[in-house]
Amino acid sequence: MAKKFADLRAQMSPESRARAESRAQAMLAEMPLNELRQARGLSQKMLAEVLHIQQPAIAKIEKRTDMYISTLRSHIEAMGGELDVVARFPDGTVKITNFADLGGNATA
Amino acid sequence: MAKKFADLRAQMSPESRARAESRAQAMLAEMPLNELRQARGLSQKMLAEVLHIQQPAIAKIEKRTDMYISTLRSHIEAMGGELDVVARFPDGTVKITNFADLGGNATA
Repeated sequence: MAKKFADLRAQMSPESRARAESRAQAMLAEMPLNELRQARGLSQKMLAEVLHIQQPAIAKIEKRTDMYISTLRSHIEAMGGELDVVARFPDGTVKITNFADLGGNATA
Repeated sequence: MAKKFADLRAQMSPESRARAESRAQAMLAEMPLNELRQARGLSQKMLAEVLHIQQPAIAKIEKRTDMYISTLRSHIEAMGGELDVVARFPDGTVKITNFADLGGNATA
């Protein structure tokens, strides 16, 4: 998936890349999936291509308030990121590893 | 959910609480759900009570490698924690907010 993202990025013009990078720098710490995609300089169409699904499926995922962790992981990996699932407690933070071995799974 | 956890903790002996706290301090940064539960000083039975489900359902959840985000959130909240879903990129980290408004949902 990371390789495919690199291919996608290579196809972007230097201007688009610079724009995406400056937007990434300015990224807020918290946002929904559609804003994150835009901040990465990606269209729904580009994401759909990476995931080998149709564009409406991307739109549908971005509107969801619940989904399988594997679906979210594929979605974030298609944007060139890594998913971390974290449990926060008053006395510490733990990364949950149950889902670490999931392969890319593009089904919604 | 947090209130119920507080009730649960109030029922623990001071020794149990101290043990849970020292284990929490010693928590590794990364672990699966069953180890996290043990590190919090909780049994499957205690968690099952908080979530109003049967103990075997807890065992089943702990063995899973994929689940709905709402299921994981309920599970972590029942342990007194908060779930964060985070996308990590080479140039920054973003908390995904799509799932923030989910109510507690104990269905697996």
